[in-house]
Amino acid sequence: MNNKNSTQFFKSKPTYIKELFPNNKFKKNIKINDVKTLAESMQNDLTFYDSKKYIDQAQKSNASVCITSKSLELDLPKNMEKIIVKNVLLELASVCKKIYPNSDIDYPDLSLKKPIKKKYKSVKFGNNVLVGKNVKIGKNSILGSNTIIESNVRIGSNCVIGSNVIIKNTIIADNVIIQDDNKIGQKGFGFIPIKNKNFKFPHIGKVIISENVEIASSCTIDRGSIDDTVIGKNTYLDNQVHVAHNVKIGANCMIAGQVGFAGSSTIGNNVSIGGQAGISGHLTVGNNVKIGGGSGVVKDIEDNQVVMGYPAVPLRDFLKTYKR
Amino acid sequence: MNNKNSTQFFKSKPTYIKELFPNNKFKKNIKINDVKTLAESMQNDLTFYDSKKYIDQAQKSNASVCITSKSLELDLPKNMEKIIVKNVLLELASVCKKIYPNSDIDYPDLSLKKPIKKKYKSVKFGNNVLVGKNVKIGKNSILGSNTIIESNVRIGSNCVIGSNVIIKNTIIADNVIIQDDNKIGQKGFGFIPIKNKNFKFPHIGKVIISENVEIASSCTIDRGSIDDTVIGKNTYLDNQVHVAHNVKIGANCMIAGQVGFAGSSTIGNNVSIGGQAGISGHLTVGNNVKIGGGSGVVKDIEDNQVVMGYPAVPLRDFLKTYKR
Amino acid sequence: MNNKNSTQFFKSKPTYIKELFPNNKFKKNIKINDVKTLAESMQNDLTFYDSKKYIDQAQKSNASVCITSKSLELDLPKNMEKIIVKNVLLELASVCKKIYPNSDIDYPDLSLKKPIKKKYKSVKFGNNVLVGKNVKIGKNSILGSNTIIESNVRIGSNCVIGSNVIIKNTIIADNVIIQDDNKIGQKGFGFIPIKNKNFKFPHIGKVIISENVEIASSCTIDRGSIDDTVIGKNTYLDNQVHVAHNVKIGANCMIAGQVGFAGSSTIGNNVSIGGQAGISGHLTVGNNVKIGGGSGVVKDIEDNQVVMGYPAVPLRDFLKTYKR
Repeated sequence: MNNKNSTQFFKSKPTYIKELFPNNKFKKNIKINDVKTLAESMQNDLTFYDSKKYIDQAQKSNASVCITSKSLELDLPKNMEKIIVKNVLLELASVCKKIYPNSDIDYPDLSLKKPIKKKYKSVKFGNNVLVGKNVKIGKNSILGSNTIIESNVRIGSNCVIGSNVIIKNTIIADNVIIQDDNKIGQKGFGFIPIKNKNFKFPHIGKVIISENVEIASSCTIDRGSIDDTVIGKNTYLDNQVHVAHNVKIGANCMIAGQVGFAGSSTIGNNVSIGGQAGISGHLTVGNNVKIGGGSGVVKDIEDNQVVMGYPAVPLRDFLKTYKR
Repeated sequence: MNNKNSTQFFKSKPTYIKELFPNNKFKKNIKINDVKTLAESMQNDLTFYDSKKYIDQAQKSNASVCITSKSLELDLPKNMEKIIVKNVLLELASVCKKIYPNSDIDYPDLSLKKPIKKKYKSVKFGNNVLVGKNVKIGKNSILGSNTIIESNVRIGSNCVIGSNVIIKNTIIADNVIIQDDNKIGQKGFGFIPIKNKNFKFPHIGKVIISENVEIASSCTIDRGSIDDTVIGKNTYLDNQVHVAHNVKIGANCMIAGQVGFAGSSTIGNNVSIGGQAGISGHLTVGNNVKIGGGSGVVKDIEDNQVVMGYPAVPLRDFLKTYKR
Repeated sequence: MNNKNSTQFFKSKPTYIKELFPNNKFKKNIKINDVKTLAESMQNDLTFYDSKKYIDQAQKSNASVCITSKSLELDLPKNMEKIIVKNVLLELASVCKKIYPNSDIDYPDLSLKKPIKKKYKSVKFGNNVLVGKNVKIGKNSILGSNTIIESNVRIGSNCVIGSNVIIKNTIIADNVIIQDDNKIGQKGFGFIPIKNKNFKFPHIGKVIISENVEIASSCTIDRGSIDDTVIGKNTYLDNQVHVAHNVKIGANCMIAGQVGFAGSSTIGNNVSIGGQAGISGHLTVGNNVKIGGGSGVVKDIEDNQVVMGYPAVPLRDFLKTYKR
């Protein structure tokens, strides 16, 4: 299953840039298909560029239109249309809300129904399962009682989903185990702070869960905002783990109980993280990294490192400091 | 909506002080209407005073009767009836249990039914929603599937409540978003330790959620014990946040994932708290404070401070210590 | 009620050691009744011994067969059959999966039904409660709405179980309070890491909850793997506590919000643990210990200690280091 971008969880209103940005002048009136990250954008997509950190992706982006700021403008390809603003994320949020009108609030799916047995012949359901429109569930999968699968979700074959689970805006590969009470695909924590009434950041991304993943009980895995949230193959999560929007966890990782990932961090393959550790936002953690329980990771970690502490430092430095 | 004290989640048995305290002598037999904090008490209310920290409120309290200890007695107004005991909280718990007989255990509401469509004309409900007696839900609000709203709860207009949510003992203003799997208004963690069978502390307070609040998935917000638990206007909570009894969070705050508040702390306005931080009990955090992720706040913080660490210290001290 | 070992949550396939270990030679073909820890094993049980830490139990074990490694073999009783392997836990997992075929995945119970009123005469149920086969619930217990009690669970008398609770593989004594949204008895986090597809560790243990325990909202308490997970008499847990497999918490303990216990630790009686503290795996914490909020306990703690910090140290050392 090619599970990338294969589902659209919001119908976009096809829109032209002259409508979206009436105060700008454009050579031609480009039709916007979708809003994507710099790396994922294709022709007719709108993107954004708000930090030098992403200069490599900015230079190579195939987007047709990009929201950015005066100081970053020159990093982008010449033939790309640029929308120059002071607050890139506020403009992006405002435009997303126009293209995807209901994406700024996590509305519950009101089209849920009991699953039609004929449609899911080899699937076993517990009691009171509710399923939305256009849901696909692979062969021999099992779903526990009171579980909710919202519209457009795809679940692979041989999956075991527990009870009281809620899944939305998510694509799940084969042989995935999701234990009781997990909440997957909810809107992430994003808004532009404004006194008295914040501007809620629209969320149009997905959660992608790869083959052989196992997720223990009561985790929360938020959908991506513009990007997707991804859990790699054969990665295991323990209870009460919190995965914020746009986090990408690699393959063969082991994430212990109550670990928290802030938004947009990327974790490599074969990474093990001890209980209650926290990973700050927008970081890169390399392959084969071991992070001790209770650590607070606040900067990038290279491949093959063993770190511990708050803030997390190489293990030998941690042990030196705390030797008594 | 004047949402303070407008609902009573337990029917009190009107009681006279001579019955409650048969071993004490009183000038007259005062009828007790309610049990309140020093600051909230009015005439005919019973209150308690157990720590010099609250001397200002003790001196000005309008309560008719106060449970206190020998050493604190003189701080209270002269004409107030005082009940002098050794263990103020144990006496308070014992009296509360007499006035509100079932308030020491979080009994589930057994009067829940499917919502009557006629009563909630413009409200949209998912499947299997259960609603108690005397519930009010404002115009155009939406409630997801499997959600439980227990008796006497009030929900404002234009609210969006997700699926698998449980709300009890709570008053919610307009334009509030509560995502999936939140538990709001449960009994807090309170008891007087006694070998083999603790004395459970009765909880008679509410949760008050103000306008434009957004609560992400899987938080727990406990009802107040004697006081209320309050979330101020336009404050946003991320996933898996734990708010204990009597906590008061101000307006325009930003609380990241897995933050925990111990009981009875007061947080100012415009406060931002990073992921997994913990705030100890009975503290005061000022306005415009920033608390770094993973911090452990163990003492009061003045306005406009930026703190980080365990225990939390001013950011520049934290950076000095951890510079390598 | 003798609640130890009184229920079998998986039917074992009675098996002979010659089938289980066809490459080994045995004097006689022992029938294996069950898989147990060194201490709990009786005749005809299979056990395992993988660490010198458990030498005392190894020497006294009554098991008939033990999986162990070359270097540990001599600690075991002479007349015990030994299976010598390189990876004890992998061999154990593989054998358990043969004896208890479905114990490596947390399959939801698909036999749930509405409770039959006649069977539970004095029990009060909320709406949509689902109960498995062979469930026993004592007199005057109350269960909230949407709660799931899977097959073979036993609940004592005068218990109050909240709403949206899931209980499986668990034995609960009398007078226990379990508030909303708790998940008790799910499979723990255990697997043998293998690239691309981990070997899932079978879980055949129980959760045992003793008299007068109170568990606040949204905790997760995992079933034991080979051993049981135990919560002692009169112990109270606050919201969002995570108790991993095989943890044993003593009597009269007070566990504050968001505390996490890694697997197989043993906590004494009268222990209090502050919010967000973490206890590493395979530790022993003595009686009357106080652990400060946010602490990270990484080694054994003797009786009567007061500790705080990350890593946790005696309180006076913590205060010395952090005095500013």
